[in-house]
Amino acid sequence: METVSIGIITLSDRASRGEYDDLSGPEIRRYFSERLKNTIEWHYEVIPDEPDRLKSLLTEMSDNHIGLICTTGGTGPAPRDITPQVTEEVCDKILPGFGEEMRRVSLQVVPTAILSAQTAGIRKKSLIINLPGKPKAIAECLDGVYAAIPYCLDLIGAPRMEFTAKGSDAFRPKKK
Amino acid sequence: METVSIGIITLSDRASRGEYDDLSGPEIRRYFSERLKNTIEWHYEVIPDEPDRLKSLLTEMSDNHIGLICTTGGTGPAPRDITPQVTEEVCDKILPGFGEEMRRVSLQVVPTAILSAQTAGIRKKSLIINLPGKPKAIAECLDGVYAAIPYCLDLIGAPRMEFTAKGSDAFRPKKK
Amino acid sequence: METVSIGIITLSDRASRGEYDDLSGPEIRRYFSERLKNTIEWHYEVIPDEPDRLKSLLTEMSDNHIGLICTTGGTGPAPRDITPQVTEEVCDKILPGFGEEMRRVSLQVVPTAILSAQTAGIRKKSLIINLPGKPKAIAECLDGVYAAIPYCLDLIGAPRMEFTAKGSDAFRPKKK
Repeated sequence: METVSIGIITLSDRASRGEYDDLSGPEIRRYFSERLKNTIEWHYEVIPDEPDRLKSLLTEMSDNHIGLICTTGGTGPAPRDITPQVTEEVCDKILPGFGEEMRRVSLQVVPTAILSAQTAGIRKKSLIINLPGKPKAIAECLDGVYAAIPYCLDLIGAPRMEFTAKGSDAFRPKKK
Repeated sequence: METVSIGIITLSDRASRGEYDDLSGPEIRRYFSERLKNTIEWHYEVIPDEPDRLKSLLTEMSDNHIGLICTTGGTGPAPRDITPQVTEEVCDKILPGFGEEMRRVSLQVVPTAILSAQTAGIRKKSLIINLPGKPKAIAECLDGVYAAIPYCLDLIGAPRMEFTAKGSDAFRPKKK
Repeated sequence: METVSIGIITLSDRASRGEYDDLSGPEIRRYFSERLKNTIEWHYEVIPDEPDRLKSLLTEMSDNHIGLICTTGGTGPAPRDITPQVTEEVCDKILPGFGEEMRRVSLQVVPTAILSAQTAGIRKKSLIINLPGKPKAIAECLDGVYAAIPYCLDLIGAPRMEFTAKGSDAFRPKKK
């Protein structure tokens, strides 16, 4: 079984200054730890909502063959929310279905879900997914898209994910 | 309570020539008048489907601190339908959740709802929303997104909206 | 009754090399043949997943007044999947509602539906629609959007489609 690398980038001006503890990054880690059998190599960064900082981090992580990169925070309408815009800029290809489905799922919880511009896309052999900044919205969004992540990683040539019982929703279509 | 400014731009070659009365603009006005307690300053224009005219009007309205700008008309596949394309051009940030949700709501009424490219986005401290041209589709679409509008305006620094009983769906998440 | 022209472009490296028979192109042909009363002029090409080849073919077909052009294949995250990206490049206008609705329909069948970046758009007097590569997913996706296609073609000035009983879902709003 291959080791898989997962990058987590928390965007928060206040958490990056140490004004509070980031709870979203650890929540993403918990979510995947429970579902994957593979040994996971974690790459975790807490940064301010700065486009240049995010851009260089996404580029660096995907250049370093991190197959899955999750961001949390910075997806809203406020001026300093820049995560989806930077994601679109660095990606070779956008996968709009991720954002659509995560908003649809969140909309069943809060009507302000439509304010999130969260998206996902491919850069080289990395899948980049924008998650919301609120810790409790992370599992909601991932539940909506998780099942498609491992097959997506197969298709772009990233290491293969293997699942625990909790990851049994993950779906790989049969080869034609 | 602050005064709020709302811009309404009707795009219609025929209405702008006076060939019929615009019903969509007044419908937007009725919708917000019923839901807001604030004094509202209205800015209403009926223009032909001309990209340059729309672009300068959107720019001018947002430069003049109009917090909410609703367009009606020009969202379809016909060659002169240019509203969403111009909206994307002038906005600093697109909020795709608005278009997705308005299409989903409209699709329950007519299968041709998927032909609308309507979108929404932020320019400076203004939220710009594209509404359909048909008067009766306006309330349908606004019902799908209205609840998120006031919080969006809070986030971009526009004046705060206060609600009547009819506007009680409006939702502001608690501060973290 | 006018003759309508329909273009079908199958994108598949393997099918284009003759390694297997294309089943998706014929499935698209079957779908429309059953629903249209018009005489149909078919334009059918099987090509490798090459952006330049697709770009010139889409351009040529729409320059030649083919009102409806359906692609099949090349909509996923893999590096050689380039269909939606080329479609966006050649189109004058994107109609995001098609992709949204086709993904939503497919998602009820497989969770990996969110991996498809399929879209649709207008180039001159042609509607271009990206369909998935799997033959059995084609009718699923077309069932979700078919009803809006004829009216879309009316709006862009393409020849008028007339329907058989099987095409009775097709919807044209009444003129205002």
